[in-house]
Amino acid sequence: MKASSGIDLMVGLDRDSTVGLRAQLEHQLREGVRSGTLRHDAPLPSTRALARELGVARGVVMEAYAQLAAEGYLVSRQGAPTRVAARAAAPPSVTAPTEPSAPRFDFRPGAPDVSLFPRTAWATALRQALREAPDARFSYSDPRGTPELRQALSTYLGRVRGVAADPEAVMVTSGLTQGLALTCRALAARGVRRIAVEEPGSADLRAPIAAAGLEWVAIDVDGDGLDVAALERSDVGAALVTPAHQYPTGVVLAPERRAALLEWAVARDAFVLEDDYDAEYRYDRQPVGALQGLDPQRVVYMSSISKTLAPALRIGWLVAPPALVEETRHQKATDDRGTPVLTQLGLTVMLERGELDRHVRSTRVVYRRRRDTLIAALARRLPELHPRGAAAGLHLLVDLPHDVDEGALVRAAEGRGVGLDSLAPHSARPARPGLILGYGRIAEPAIEGGVRALAGAIDAVTRG
Amino acid sequence: MKASSGIDLMVGLDRDSTVGLRAQLEHQLREGVRSGTLRHDAPLPSTRALARELGVARGVVMEAYAQLAAEGYLVSRQGAPTRVAARAAAPPSVTAPTEPSAPRFDFRPGAPDVSLFPRTAWATALRQALREAPDARFSYSDPRGTPELRQALSTYLGRVRGVAADPEAVMVTSGLTQGLALTCRALAARGVRRIAVEEPGSADLRAPIAAAGLEWVAIDVDGDGLDVAALERSDVGAALVTPAHQYPTGVVLAPERRAALLEWAVARDAFVLEDDYDAEYRYDRQPVGALQGLDPQRVVYMSSISKTLAPALRIGWLVAPPALVEETRHQKATDDRGTPVLTQLGLTVMLERGELDRHVRSTRVVYRRRRDTLIAALARRLPELHPRGAAAGLHLLVDLPHDVDEGALVRAAEGRGVGLDSLAPHSARPARPGLILGYGRIAEPAIEGGVRALAGAIDAVTRG
Repeated sequence: MKASSGIDLMVGLDRDSTVGLRAQLEHQLREGVRSGTLRHDAPLPSTRALARELGVARGVVMEAYAQLAAEGYLVSRQGAPTRVAARAAAPPSVTAPTEPSAPRFDFRPGAPDVSLFPRTAWATALRQALREAPDARFSYSDPRGTPELRQALSTYLGRVRGVAADPEAVMVTSGLTQGLALTCRALAARGVRRIAVEEPGSADLRAPIAAAGLEWVAIDVDGDGLDVAALERSDVGAALVTPAHQYPTGVVLAPERRAALLEWAVARDAFVLEDDYDAEYRYDRQPVGALQGLDPQRVVYMSSISKTLAPALRIGWLVAPPALVEETRHQKATDDRGTPVLTQLGLTVMLERGELDRHVRSTRVVYRRRRDTLIAALARRLPELHPRGAAAGLHLLVDLPHDVDEGALVRAAEGRGVGLDSLAPHSARPARPGLILGYGRIAEPAIEGGVRALAGAIDAVTRG
Repeated sequence: MKASSGIDLMVGLDRDSTVGLRAQLEHQLREGVRSGTLRHDAPLPSTRALARELGVARGVVMEAYAQLAAEGYLVSRQGAPTRVAARAAAPPSVTAPTEPSAPRFDFRPGAPDVSLFPRTAWATALRQALREAPDARFSYSDPRGTPELRQALSTYLGRVRGVAADPEAVMVTSGLTQGLALTCRALAARGVRRIAVEEPGSADLRAPIAAAGLEWVAIDVDGDGLDVAALERSDVGAALVTPAHQYPTGVVLAPERRAALLEWAVARDAFVLEDDYDAEYRYDRQPVGALQGLDPQRVVYMSSISKTLAPALRIGWLVAPPALVEETRHQKATDDRGTPVLTQLGLTVMLERGELDRHVRSTRVVYRRRRDTLIAALARRLPELHPRGAAAGLHLLVDLPHDVDEGALVRAAEGRGVGLDSLAPHSARPARPGLILGYGRIAEPAIEGGVRALAGAIDAVTRG
């Protein structure tokens, strides 16, 4: 419509809408200012004139003008016409990063099969938690997590992983990444400057370390795990390790190395950060217990349910040595004031009912079958590759001949629909090429075809 | 029992337990090492001898010894007796901070009435989300949050708060505190060193700012909100403000100040951080729309459901200017890889069904009544105090005579069962004493008694 003042207001009110007339008018005026249709400093029609033209009560227009003046879109002055204010800007458009779609043969490591997520058990647990939780649980609370879950985790971790966890030392985190980030900040606050990481080692964990202001120093991993002698020669105040199933080599930290690592920590007044990311899945024997149990004063234990239940729940935990309890708690409070309580209450129910144990037991069977199928397919189609680190976890490693171009091979595999990871991104120093094949995501029947396609890619790259 | 080797192993196996014999043996040996009952370097009985004494198969003992050797509790050497390894330590005990119990008259600000939390609606929303979510939602995903929730928030914030939010610019956070922490880190990464905060202003937000490595500079708030002229004289690269309802004074940022603040941001190439913590609750008129709508290129918009639904859900959001989208996303990925997805899906359902609007509407009536009751009780019992900032939010402010000892009064009130906050903790500079009275937590019938007890405390302190 053309307002009598000569300004094209483009206002059209819908009397059948559930949105009120004032709100409609306001919205359209706001959009007009933002889009530039209503130009800076342009006078608006008087409230009386606009009300008449729109066929609404004058109060509706007055309220809309007053609201937009209060918000800064319009300028009202006594005795002068209301005008458009300066500089309201059109909403900027942001280009979206496109989410990568899953490859046909999905050997990408680092995630479990989320189609196995126990939706019904989780829904039941949440329903019970929502029914039973006292009101106070819905407000702000201890940033370390609810007492119920810290108690349940203390029991669970003691039983399943041999962790010596006083519930007061347990802190619920939003996944292992946050646990690491908080621990690194706590260490930085104590004056730690450098931390040892495994070489090769998980690339994902280097960003949180650096973001906390720590410098990481890569220490080689051999067939017995971290080279503690090399660690002793380095000048670091902490070491991040994956003792139960090293990522990505799959090596188990040898007993002597465990002892040496803890001796180093005591001698150096340093801390060991134990990343226990996938130890629940061990196929040939019982999982190796956590290092933390050997020295709870020196080891920060960290794990999560990202591999056992689902990454999307974003729930994990750390068990801090007494010296770090207060500082990690402070870091958590500063960061996000605690992990969502309802998820914590749901997990507590899952633990108390034995649902987590049940789920781990049943998925272990599934993953073991996939692992065996993968190893058999590799032996058949790529007998020159020898899988390593397959005793536990959700991935294995195959070394490649020294002259294979790892990057070219990953791309060739991608071109054949095979998603996987390789050693280079997880290596700070040049290393023998290798492939990391996860079997968390891929369905068993797809494995044979995936290995066939991978063999084709290797053939193409080595011939080329 | 006394093992034949002469070592008191204290092992007693329970054949009726659901825990296997090997696991029981392992557990008891591990505890024996930790507690020091099994001393460093002590030899253990041979597997044959111990099996005989316990009446179990030898394999059970061999497996237990092997497991504990792998974990570092025992040392096995070919041809020599298994021995206890060095230095496993007893779990340290940690002293717990006691959680403060709620005062009888709970005027503590900063939280809503969580007994009003719509448990049934939330449970229904979660059930629907769990039923309908595609499998992929349970794995790792975009750290900014699910596309569904970012879209729903874009619509909701545009409608309710006048925010211009491209869904690609929306990021789901674990509450407003995290949104602030991530934004500050993103600013620090761009080279920002100092940020203006309001004086008085929320004390809770200073720790995340400092933790991100930024220095905060207190800029006075007067009856029109932040003193932008003083801001212009300060050397800061960003300003954190609460335009809709300043915390704790309750002042609404005046239209001219809004314009001046944005002009400053453009001229200085700075960013405005808009903390929109409780704007949904406005009682006398429609809430004042967000500042962000006036300049989405310069304003980072942040809010949460902590005041409308419950703090314990730990879910909030920020809308970033294009210049900060990528960096805030990176910070989120580094910090915790995303906010729990199931909570996000539940909130999406709540938004789409209009449940959040419904809840805000119904609780607004409750809080308005409490506010009116509180104002009336203050007028009756403490007529010399004039409440301020009561047009919106969940708290009001009363100034005290200059000679009242604010700290002594808070303690005296506490002694009478009255929990409240005061100005001093939120002031960087000495200020006129004042009390912050929240009505989010207190039930309406308790208000009158609470004000009576407060009047008693004031009387005692001013007489004293």
